[in-house]
Amino acid sequence: MDHECYMRQALELARQAMAEGEVPVGCVIVRDGVVVGQGRNRRETGYTALGHAEIEAIHQACQTLGGWRLAGCSLYVTLEPCPMCAGAIINARIPALYYGAKDDKAGCCGSVLNLFEERFNHHPRIYSGILGQECAQLLQNFFLNLR
Amino acid sequence: MDHECYMRQALELARQAMAEGEVPVGCVIVRDGVVVGQGRNRRETGYTALGHAEIEAIHQACQTLGGWRLAGCSLYVTLEPCPMCAGAIINARIPALYYGAKDDKAGCCGSVLNLFEERFNHHPRIYSGILGQECAQLLQNFFLNLR
Repeated sequence: MDHECYMRQALELARQAMAEGEVPVGCVIVRDGVVVGQGRNRRETGYTALGHAEIEAIHQACQTLGGWRLAGCSLYVTLEPCPMCAGAIINARIPALYYGAKDDKAGCCGSVLNLFEERFNHHPRIYSGILGQECAQLLQNFFLNLR
Repeated sequence: MDHECYMRQALELARQAMAEGEVPVGCVIVRDGVVVGQGRNRRETGYTALGHAEIEAIHQACQTLGGWRLAGCSLYVTLEPCPMCAGAIINARIPALYYGAKDDKAGCCGSVLNLFEERFNHHPRIYSGILGQECAQLLQNFFLNLR
């Protein structure tokens, strides 16, 4: 199944983040079957509050496609987006969002609130739970090892 | 008044954005009286959905200060932040936000919603209307000239 294939790529990026001591989150953006952007969490190693996987992937996809509007793109991310990343998805007009695990603390696809149901000028389709258990397990392992 | 002095610097950055054909929004971040980050809108010229003034300023401030946590910083921006930028302000733990004009279409300090009153793990102090008329006038002039 294509969606799982792309989420596996996002999971691989999440594992790379974990190998560097970062919270394991990964993201890929796909258009017409081609990966046009990818990213992983690098908040600590990149010294920046913007270092979320989705932000890196969206910026890369914009550069690849030559503009801020990511029409026809699907974003795959292992964790439910935070407000910053949900806002970036709106700003980039990404039509479809697939995520793995829920984020009770910061998730903006329904966990804390649903930014995509608010009165903004773009409303992507949202699909949750793609390889959800695997995505959640990776995060749980990371936080268990921290203790 | 210090707040107006910093907002004037943000307004100057907004004017620079306008000179390049961008929606005029500017931002500075200050710690202990020193500007540690600045940015202006460059969504079109930078080919990126992330090209908002606040995002550029926050990234620069993180690089200047050597980490993702912008403790002790104040952010000055000419326009009420959108969800992405409000989320970035939360992620960077910026304690104080000063903005100029309201944004009825995307503003997240009360216009569309107030992200800072939601159940996230950081709640900055918000001050609105700093040189508000001047900030709003600049935007109005830009959009009038577009027609």
